[in-house]
Amino acid sequence: MTDDALLIPPIADLTDEALTAELQHRIDNKTKPPGSLGRIEALAVRIGAILGTTTPLLQQPQMLVCAGDHGLAARGTSAFPSDVTWQMVENFLSGGAAVSVLARQHGIGLTVVDCGMRRELPARPGLVVARVGAGTRDALEGPSMNRTECAQAVAQGRAVVRGLPGNALLLGEMGIGNTSAASLLLARLARLDIAEVTGAGTGLDADGVQRKIGILRAVLARHPGAVDPLQALAAFGGFEIATLVGAVIEAALQRRVIVVDGFIASSAVMVAAALQPAVLQRCVFAHRSGERGHALMLSHLKAEPLLDLGLRLGEGSGAALAWPLLESACAILREMASFESAGVSRSEVAETARS
Amino acid sequence: MTDDALLIPPIADLTDEALTAELQHRIDNKTKPPGSLGRIEALAVRIGAILGTTTPLLQQPQMLVCAGDHGLAARGTSAFPSDVTWQMVENFLSGGAAVSVLARQHGIGLTVVDCGMRRELPARPGLVVARVGAGTRDALEGPSMNRTECAQAVAQGRAVVRGLPGNALLLGEMGIGNTSAASLLLARLARLDIAEVTGAGTGLDADGVQRKIGILRAVLARHPGAVDPLQALAAFGGFEIATLVGAVIEAALQRRVIVVDGFIASSAVMVAAALQPAVLQRCVFAHRSGERGHALMLSHLKAEPLLDLGLRLGEGSGAALAWPLLESACAILREMASFESAGVSRSEVAETARS
Repeated sequence: MTDDALLIPPIADLTDEALTAELQHRIDNKTKPPGSLGRIEALAVRIGAILGTTTPLLQQPQMLVCAGDHGLAARGTSAFPSDVTWQMVENFLSGGAAVSVLARQHGIGLTVVDCGMRRELPARPGLVVARVGAGTRDALEGPSMNRTECAQAVAQGRAVVRGLPGNALLLGEMGIGNTSAASLLLARLARLDIAEVTGAGTGLDADGVQRKIGILRAVLARHPGAVDPLQALAAFGGFEIATLVGAVIEAALQRRVIVVDGFIASSAVMVAAALQPAVLQRCVFAHRSGERGHALMLSHLKAEPLLDLGLRLGEGSGAALAWPLLESACAILREMASFESAGVSRSEVAETARS
Repeated sequence: MTDDALLIPPIADLTDEALTAELQHRIDNKTKPPGSLGRIEALAVRIGAILGTTTPLLQQPQMLVCAGDHGLAARGTSAFPSDVTWQMVENFLSGGAAVSVLARQHGIGLTVVDCGMRRELPARPGLVVARVGAGTRDALEGPSMNRTECAQAVAQGRAVVRGLPGNALLLGEMGIGNTSAASLLLARLARLDIAEVTGAGTGLDADGVQRKIGILRAVLARHPGAVDPLQALAAFGGFEIATLVGAVIEAALQRRVIVVDGFIASSAVMVAAALQPAVLQRCVFAHRSGERGHALMLSHLKAEPLLDLGLRLGEGSGAALAWPLLESACAILREMASFESAGVSRSEVAETARS
């Protein structure tokens, strides 16, 4: 990586007190007790702030599912074999996976990116080929990817988003073994013990989780110097995670609303935010995953997710499930009547306070 | 009430172990790690069980917003004046309220029932006139309604649902002062102290809540004998709550999916379930309200809501916000591929377990 600043442009602080005040005023004048729509109100303010308007309209939302394989998976860190990565990508493309069903339900465009699966699939509509390699290397033997590969993946993530329409990006991923990468990134960047942040992934049993922890602890010990975000990303990350980091950076640069799925998607946001903290102002966290470690990652990011349904599928499925809440927040802002326009009396408490 | 059994028909136990096993099998064969869609999986099983099919399709969902006024409100138990009830009904009908916006967003039919507001509104499309009186009486002086009025409201709730199409009913309500009625019902039917279950409603301050608790405690003391569900409903309830009890009973009888909103709608379900416990098998609880008391009511009903967003608006707004999750659960069951059909390898753990 010859020039990190070129790869990772500065992301501007969005803070606009006048706009925020205008958004809050607009919500407080809707025909409802102040604050009674709870977190939907804060969500509306956030989306308005990202899109820079008091009447936000989400347009052409895009689900980006980045897929890649992991060298470390050969050591048995996952309950499923690596072949499932390309098999599931076929499933995404043929419309039978959870994310396919949910994206279709909500009219969300679906783009799958082959960021470097072990098996190369024939190009077709809906599949972007942006392969950095045939899976990452075994992180126990060296970095998962070198700095050039890491930069390539990030740059490709940025390029893919530039090619997508719309003002909202939903983050999805597929990669057998990628909860290991996310746990490693969290342990290193948030300085947490690996045992605290390692879970069952797709379904390891208790012994499997213990073996996984042992392997991940050894991986961390193998890369003591990988402490800055891009170094950690190269040492521990996957091609799909690095591509998502680029996607997040580009979407943030363009002030798109970024809808963050579970543990893996959040790990990409964590890396992007460590590089450019204002990225987080553009993010809506869809859900708290059932995967151990996600709650700690969200708390590290000071993020409050919308849903808490014990989801642990990834693919972007949680982001898609939460999507209608974002549309609701915008509809509330755009379409609800004010006390004045509807001729509804205000709170007697509020009247007394004003008089 | 001459014949409770006629008013409240028996609601059959839905338990069908073969169907439940078939639903679970179908979900477990979808292309995802077992259990990875978390509570969406249990939701899919529940909807399948209610509709009696492994491929449930929700059709023509109906939001029923029951409105009524409360005599007790004249004592200052609410932050808003009683006129807001009819003003908000006008707002529902003209499309500017939260529930109007959200129902429109999701293609949910909206029917408002005047169950007995202080002001009578001219009939028009979308408004069902089923008035029991011009607001209930002051519960501190006698029962809110007599048994005949209570039975009339319940019967009208059943009749309204019989006139609505579709296989899903979302419960909404409007009535200045009705958190008091819900708190009274909860305190009496769940044997909880009134101070524990009384909150700010539409926005009382701390002193206002204390005054409200004092009034409600006196109301409970005024009706020591109102212990069975219909007696308690007559003593403490509102016309809109009694109408919702009938709506719940009828929807349960017809095996519609009942989507329960917040504190007030849940209080109607609580009364219906006290009469016919199998009602609860047909219910999906949309959210945990920010109104104090709702968490205790849900726990009394052993209900696990889908959302927890600090909502406390009522109207059915929380039910409407959660609605897409029900549609997602059905889409997952109907549209996701199985491991076999998609050619995806199973978990190595599961393979080992099977071999």
